[in-house]
Amino acid sequence: MAATPSPAEAERPRRTTYRRLPVQQRREQLIAVALELFAARPPEDVSLDDVAEAAGASRPLVYRYFAGGKQQLYEAALRSAASELVRRFRTDGFTGTPTEQLRAVLHRYFAFVDEHAAGYGALLRGGSVVETARTSAIVDDVRRAALRRTLRHLGVGEAGPRLTLLVRSWISVVEASAISRLDEGRQIPVDSLCGWLVDQFVVMAAATAVRDDQTAEVLRPWLELETPESPAGVLLARLRSIGL
Amino acid sequence: MAATPSPAEAERPRRTTYRRLPVQQRREQLIAVALELFAARPPEDVSLDDVAEAAGASRPLVYRYFAGGKQQLYEAALRSAASELVRRFRTDGFTGTPTEQLRAVLHRYFAFVDEHAAGYGALLRGGSVVETARTSAIVDDVRRAALRRTLRHLGVGEAGPRLTLLVRSWISVVEASAISRLDEGRQIPVDSLCGWLVDQFVVMAAATAVRDDQTAEVLRPWLELETPESPAGVLLARLRSIGL
Repeated sequence: MAATPSPAEAERPRRTTYRRLPVQQRREQLIAVALELFAARPPEDVSLDDVAEAAGASRPLVYRYFAGGKQQLYEAALRSAASELVRRFRTDGFTGTPTEQLRAVLHRYFAFVDEHAAGYGALLRGGSVVETARTSAIVDDVRRAALRRTLRHLGVGEAGPRLTLLVRSWISVVEASAISRLDEGRQIPVDSLCGWLVDQFVVMAAATAVRDDQTAEVLRPWLELETPESPAGVLLARLRSIGL
Repeated sequence: MAATPSPAEAERPRRTTYRRLPVQQRREQLIAVALELFAARPPEDVSLDDVAEAAGASRPLVYRYFAGGKQQLYEAALRSAASELVRRFRTDGFTGTPTEQLRAVLHRYFAFVDEHAAGYGALLRGGSVVETARTSAIVDDVRRAALRRTLRHLGVGEAGPRLTLLVRSWISVVEASAISRLDEGRQIPVDSLCGWLVDQFVVMAAATAVRDDQTAEVLRPWLELETPESPAGVLLARLRSIGL
């Protein structure tokens, strides 16, 4: 069956040139198109026909690349998005105090959340029809990468149970903030939200440090790098001013 | 088909009396048996035959009560566990400072987590084969109940976006702690874990209060009720002693 151009394609004539793409590029193009659709609508509301149409391709062609149908395409799209997200956790070349760097990474994370809103929300909320043990494993891999990156950012080699729990917990706060943002609209500006999350990290670490030597040893040199103008500096001054 | 007694039944002869149970009691008994099995093994490793055998009932009898099969029984069991969990959030009749009461609720929560380990873990982690939009909705109901209870405990009527985000985030920290506990073994004693979570609530609220008037207004009278020996009192003294 030859694909007949849809009205959407007529408006975007360059899409027709995709037909001549080599295998790997076509695959990447289909994933990119799928990601765009999954970003705008929950996965259950996206059909393979939608993907084929938006890619200017026939349904059989999409099946040739993704014989497992929508589930396989969804998982490939998810894997691609997950890799991109993990890349955004990198702080190589970042300057500034540790909390300034953390704030910069959070800005990147929320840019990702906004770009992939519907698909990412469906996944984090769970219970999506496209959710399987495999998709959950991909999300878990991202969480593990976030854990590793944060520990590396903290200069920790082997983290004990309390330091691990602290970082895991903070990552779950970041995710809860992302879900709130997607579910209830952007009531808190992203700048303010990132600032709040950095503050949460500092105080959660401080409250862990009073019970755990490893966390105290990690936190002390970190805070020494902070300036009065950095997020941690401003927070500590404000906490003191309200008598805490 | 008549159920033949299994060796397990032979050891627990009182199970045979269940055969004469009235409809509602039989239903509750099947749910209780299912909960016990789901607590010990992930839902995908529990079959309707297992439930029938453990209940001393025939498979057709189980199907008579749960025509939708394992999925329906699982959802009924989940709903029953969720109601029980929500009941444990109540603080009626509790005494002590706010953080002492919070610690007591957390103890009840972790007792629940330990009682329902496998099933609760599978659900919180997501991606379980028995997870559907309906099971996710049940879990979300529990989260909403936890949010309402915590806000009521704080004496808040209408919570703004930051106070809501704070409480949601803290609930996600509690869940992350439960998952860590189930996945990695009980590395942190439950007493210490509950204490840590109370501390996290206090500092997360304090760091929110510096940016949000409503949170500051809620936190101030709360902290005034605390004593030097209460969790909040001990935490604040320790934070000061490490120079925070």
